[in-house]
Amino acid sequence: MSLVVVGSMAFDAIETPFGKSDKIIGGAGTYIAWCASNFTPVKQISVVGGDFPQAELDALTARNVTLEGVQIKKDEKTFFWSGKYHLDMNTRDTLVTELNVLGDFQPVVPESYQDCEFLMLGNLAPSVQLSVIEQLKTKPKLVVLDTMNFWMDIALDDLKKVLAKTDVLMVNDSEARQLSGDYSLVRAAKKIMQMGPKYLIIKKGEHGALLFHENSVFYAPALPLEEVFDPTGAGDTFAGGFIGHIAKTKDISFENMKTAIIVGSALASYCVEKFGTERLREIKKADIETRLNEFVQLASFDIALV
Amino acid sequence: MSLVVVGSMAFDAIETPFGKSDKIIGGAGTYIAWCASNFTPVKQISVVGGDFPQAELDALTARNVTLEGVQIKKDEKTFFWSGKYHLDMNTRDTLVTELNVLGDFQPVVPESYQDCEFLMLGNLAPSVQLSVIEQLKTKPKLVVLDTMNFWMDIALDDLKKVLAKTDVLMVNDSEARQLSGDYSLVRAAKKIMQMGPKYLIIKKGEHGALLFHENSVFYAPALPLEEVFDPTGAGDTFAGGFIGHIAKTKDISFENMKTAIIVGSALASYCVEKFGTERLREIKKADIETRLNEFVQLASFDIALV
Repeated sequence: MSLVVVGSMAFDAIETPFGKSDKIIGGAGTYIAWCASNFTPVKQISVVGGDFPQAELDALTARNVTLEGVQIKKDEKTFFWSGKYHLDMNTRDTLVTELNVLGDFQPVVPESYQDCEFLMLGNLAPSVQLSVIEQLKTKPKLVVLDTMNFWMDIALDDLKKVLAKTDVLMVNDSEARQLSGDYSLVRAAKKIMQMGPKYLIIKKGEHGALLFHENSVFYAPALPLEEVFDPTGAGDTFAGGFIGHIAKTKDISFENMKTAIIVGSALASYCVEKFGTERLREIKKADIETRLNEFVQLASFDIALV
Repeated sequence: MSLVVVGSMAFDAIETPFGKSDKIIGGAGTYIAWCASNFTPVKQISVVGGDFPQAELDALTARNVTLEGVQIKKDEKTFFWSGKYHLDMNTRDTLVTELNVLGDFQPVVPESYQDCEFLMLGNLAPSVQLSVIEQLKTKPKLVVLDTMNFWMDIALDDLKKVLAKTDVLMVNDSEARQLSGDYSLVRAAKKIMQMGPKYLIIKKGEHGALLFHENSVFYAPALPLEEVFDPTGAGDTFAGGFIGHIAKTKDISFENMKTAIIVGSALASYCVEKFGTERLREIKKADIETRLNEFVQLASFDIALV
């Protein structure tokens, strides 16, 4: 039984108020794999061009990320994205998007991935996400979907088909409002949970995250940071930590999803400290534990005395 | 030993996307007194005109709010504010401000208030707040200050004098940024705590609140609400719940301030359900306990299994 991750593997070039990166390794699938592999082996589905460094693939293999489902198109180029963050670090302009191999990506689920128990669909075209779901002969125990406003704008019908087969949806607050057409996040959550997902995670960046399920809600704090160096990949990192913890514990209860959100938040708080995946490559289990304890300090209170 | 509250008592006229209120009772001091009196007696300092309803004063007296320090200027009019909220309910336009009796308010601290142990300075001109501090012969155990961007714009020097004598400052996130000149709330907190306050509470509305003290930080969640009917007074309500809990327990530790913030947040979540102070007049101790338990559910998680 395994965790299967679907997501882009890419080159990014990032500008922030603090500086400019070279062309570095990025992509939702990359971030998710680096994070989830802290907790459990990963079976990756993606596509790269001949220009993608073998050393990067080797680094993932060394972390127990199986790459059998990663297509390498020798004569084509890897997906490239370039963006520039505004001063507030919450908004950004896309400077360049070169889809390259991602333009006509047809995912193929290897036979060895058919034991998929947990499926993490990183942000990608809904048609690609749907194709992976449909290739799995047995319905996974949990299907987690990350998506974004871009797909709501251009591929809403496809997205709705994926949503109908999704257990947990992750979006940010403005995306939840767009998808539901409702400004109130509580009402938005109710509407979205009628589209398929039984659980909805609304990511609010520096304001934490909300988990909705039936009539329950959990508010996860975000660690206040002195400096956000580069927010790229923070959402994917969150997703990777979340699904990594779920797949490791094999517990899909609401209580354990709360813990998984804290794990995702802890990893995301590391992610933003350096460009791209740099910080995620450095951290060890002890670092994750340290930050998890900071989250406990951050959020704990006692009402017994009221 | 007592809790002394300083703040405006006013008439408000409020427009929200949901409707329009009559000229109703408002003012920071009013909200704080209604809330704090759930927990402890209050000694009020304020000023009203001859038009302020005696029934309102009687209602406060009945809740153990002493009004000896409330000046009644028979031939003058009570402070009046009118505002209109935008669709997002987070921003508003002031339509009318008639200072009336508040224009030349000279607070007088009665001799019977000299046992002040906890001093809550509601949002008012810093010169008025300072005058109250200076009239107290013994320094209170805790001075809590609420203020706003308006005073940073027009009375920053006075405000800095009050800050130097303040233990706990409450502001919202944009005010913390304005006061410190720093976008990062972590750095803003460090700078503000050098101006006097040993504790800083940053209110973030629907995104909860942060408590900073030395190198510690606490993130209090806000209860996600289906509908915010009228946000007027939510910040004052928060202040009233906070200081009410502190004054009742007489415990000014960081741990107890965390609890006090949850109490303030619970009351604020009731405040916004109806126009003005209407909902705050209805709720009983059992309602407060119910909501406090909702906050425990909202924020609790377990990392023991990671």
